[in-house]
Amino acid sequence: MSKKASIGVTGLAVMGRNLARNLARHGHTVALHNRSEERTRKLVEEFGDEGEFIPAYSAREFVDALERPRQIVIMVKAGGPTDAVIEEFAPLLEQGDVIIDAGNAHFADTRRREKALRERGLHFVGSGVSGGEEGALHGPSIMPGGSKESYQSLGPLFEDISAKVDGEPCCTHIGADGAGHFVKMVHNGIEYADMQLIAESFDLLRGAAGYAPAEIADVFRTWNTGRLDSYLIEITSEVLKHVDASGSPFVDVVEDAAEQKGTGRWTVQIGLDLGVPISGIAEAVFARSLSGSKPLREAARGLGGPSRAPLSGAALETFADDVEQALYASKVVAYAQGFNQIQAGAAEYGWDIDLGRVAAIWRGGCIIRAKFLNDITSAYAEEPALPTLLTSGGFRKAVEDAQDSWRSVISTAVRLGIPTPGFSTALAYYDGLRADRLPAALVQGQRDFFGAHTYRRVDREGSFHTLWAAEDRSEVDA
Amino acid sequence: MSKKASIGVTGLAVMGRNLARNLARHGHTVALHNRSEERTRKLVEEFGDEGEFIPAYSAREFVDALERPRQIVIMVKAGGPTDAVIEEFAPLLEQGDVIIDAGNAHFADTRRREKALRERGLHFVGSGVSGGEEGALHGPSIMPGGSKESYQSLGPLFEDISAKVDGEPCCTHIGADGAGHFVKMVHNGIEYADMQLIAESFDLLRGAAGYAPAEIADVFRTWNTGRLDSYLIEITSEVLKHVDASGSPFVDVVEDAAEQKGTGRWTVQIGLDLGVPISGIAEAVFARSLSGSKPLREAARGLGGPSRAPLSGAALETFADDVEQALYASKVVAYAQGFNQIQAGAAEYGWDIDLGRVAAIWRGGCIIRAKFLNDITSAYAEEPALPTLLTSGGFRKAVEDAQDSWRSVISTAVRLGIPTPGFSTALAYYDGLRADRLPAALVQGQRDFFGAHTYRRVDREGSFHTLWAAEDRSEVDA
Repeated sequence: MSKKASIGVTGLAVMGRNLARNLARHGHTVALHNRSEERTRKLVEEFGDEGEFIPAYSAREFVDALERPRQIVIMVKAGGPTDAVIEEFAPLLEQGDVIIDAGNAHFADTRRREKALRERGLHFVGSGVSGGEEGALHGPSIMPGGSKESYQSLGPLFEDISAKVDGEPCCTHIGADGAGHFVKMVHNGIEYADMQLIAESFDLLRGAAGYAPAEIADVFRTWNTGRLDSYLIEITSEVLKHVDASGSPFVDVVEDAAEQKGTGRWTVQIGLDLGVPISGIAEAVFARSLSGSKPLREAARGLGGPSRAPLSGAALETFADDVEQALYASKVVAYAQGFNQIQAGAAEYGWDIDLGRVAAIWRGGCIIRAKFLNDITSAYAEEPALPTLLTSGGFRKAVEDAQDSWRSVISTAVRLGIPTPGFSTALAYYDGLRADRLPAALVQGQRDFFGAHTYRRVDREGSFHTLWAAEDRSEVDA
Repeated sequence: MSKKASIGVTGLAVMGRNLARNLARHGHTVALHNRSEERTRKLVEEFGDEGEFIPAYSAREFVDALERPRQIVIMVKAGGPTDAVIEEFAPLLEQGDVIIDAGNAHFADTRRREKALRERGLHFVGSGVSGGEEGALHGPSIMPGGSKESYQSLGPLFEDISAKVDGEPCCTHIGADGAGHFVKMVHNGIEYADMQLIAESFDLLRGAAGYAPAEIADVFRTWNTGRLDSYLIEITSEVLKHVDASGSPFVDVVEDAAEQKGTGRWTVQIGLDLGVPISGIAEAVFARSLSGSKPLREAARGLGGPSRAPLSGAALETFADDVEQALYASKVVAYAQGFNQIQAGAAEYGWDIDLGRVAAIWRGGCIIRAKFLNDITSAYAEEPALPTLLTSGGFRKAVEDAQDSWRSVISTAVRLGIPTPGFSTALAYYDGLRADRLPAALVQGQRDFFGAHTYRRVDREGSFHTLWAAEDRSEVDA
């Protein structure tokens, strides 16, 4: 009997191919399968010397090539194709085998699939994999959900191929059923917010301070040596310094219409279902929609704005530093919102998620990898049930220290007519959270007036309704 | 054979009862039905002298009491109960009969039900009804969807009982299948935004100008004589002037945790699906969630803010006027976003919606009824395919004139630490829409760098990718 594979990958487009190569490069024997044979053959031809592959040209052959418990990584399109592949293999598997969906599925689909396969005696692991093609090949951040039992066999393999930070693998068991895909979704939502905040920083440095893209590239490069040190800041600097073949800065020849995929939108939709205010992610998604609303922008061009004299003197001198503070503080808010959404998801779906470990495995391999995540890891290590990152010692002080600059930068943007939806919503969230009283009390009064929706009081328990139509507007228990 | 009813109402809780009474008061014979007989008897006992009612104590009896085509208004809980009632009656109905769901169903459910009943030869009308209990009795704003054919029999009845403005009924056929419930959903989303903006105005007048609630009530009363003349401004003044039995202003004894029902959240979720930036509605929903996030607010109390010296001198003198301008401009943005969402829904689902008529039927009966809606009606009458309300003559000038105050009010809020997520997002939207270039170009550059997502160029057609890892970072067609 020939050697068997410790894991198999089906769906050999670039992500699946790179994951398979990564596994093989780490000494694991990998069974390969793809709907069309061509891709399987090509992988073995081109990369067969990177490790041990067992190509399989039928579902049966593929399943037979695997050690027990069999572990099959599916890397196909989310939705119908995933269900189809599951239905192709599940009937061939045995008690205790594991199917892993490593695509970007909606966590609700993952929960549904996990339940259905559990009832058939199989493990189903929805796993977030972040880092794109490069990450898949050289070490992604991996977020597997599913049963603890499945992680016993799968964990060592995935930890082996994941990115490493300070020797620690960027992979951990997130929680039951859909927890992995949920956390990956929020990761992507945070990525949206982070990118939007960086984009606003660029826009301000250009529009308010009058810097050229190459100068702004230098500003970002400097920031990247400090507390903002991160992959996104690093590549922003690279993008901004790039000069197009036409001689123009690259950023000026790119159409300013950003695209969005599903996960950012999902994050906001689920945040709404959970009742978690994640306005930073929402504004980032809306900013992309707005940028892509061509007829609307065409029509609105020429709407009156303020005169836009760039800053000068002392204000100009400190401006880049002020923007760094605003960016940092807004970023803390965006991450605080995202981690609160994970907390709320865990409470809703009964997942036991270690937020500190989540921050830790995002430190490498994924798009939002950043030095900053060390501080989040520490914050949750110190206080696992931290209600918000904003009250954790280090962040609290940093944001409090940043706030004068933060407020000044937004004032400048508002005065000059430069849109900063991300900075503004982050500050509004911060000011809303720390407010002694919010005008929501008036909203409750309005709701009671027009719809008898009742209200609570600050001074005693119960629900109350005011008889607004009565002469004396008396209050009654509701 | 005794007289038959022109319409029937099943589900006689307060909304159904009031609709039935409204119909009877207008001279229509109304068949009555309820799951428990008690409510049916009680309605006839208490209000039998208001008009002609035919109580029915079984589904069969109810159906037999109706003229052809039978018209049955369902007023029960959204979701399962609605489906159950439909299944109770549909088998008893004949070709061409009409079932009307007057509750707050999700428009996707309405589309599903309409399709299923159409295949059975029945009409299904999802109808928005706005104005709460009082509206249902004295004249609501009614938004029926469904087939044109169904509106031929139903329209005259609904127009008869709807609110009237300048003699015109606040009821019109919105469009096919789920169009009525969709428009009602957006109505509610706009209501959320409107209330949030009013709440921020109050908070600013108190926190920045130091006015007492009774003084602010006077400010709102004055505003209500001008362009902001509306039901919500009117009741805000009433709520603010109300003094609690304890001697404190009412608004100070109400717990500042606002509640949200489904429709605000749905509006944002559907806006995201449609790719329409409706940030004003989203921020309003999030502001409510934030206000209700007790443990979070508890933890965050005491986070550092700026010193909060109220305004004085000239700034104080003009402040109320400035806030009126900010409120007006932000409100135009919120409505512009909402109407764009209706436009996008119509395009997506093939509804032929007359936006001017929508604005017209919101002028009376509903919570957001306002003088302001006359201007929206005119704007769409002039240009039915208007890309955004912001470019319509009157609104454009008003917002351009308001913007100095708008910017100044937000700067004040930001400086003093008063949260204004609604005002801020509205201005960011305005500035984003009119921007020549948005930093979305940088976002596209980042996306191409880390995920090879490609970009478009401003100077030629096609999709492009930059080989970021290559020495010369050359560009290739993608």
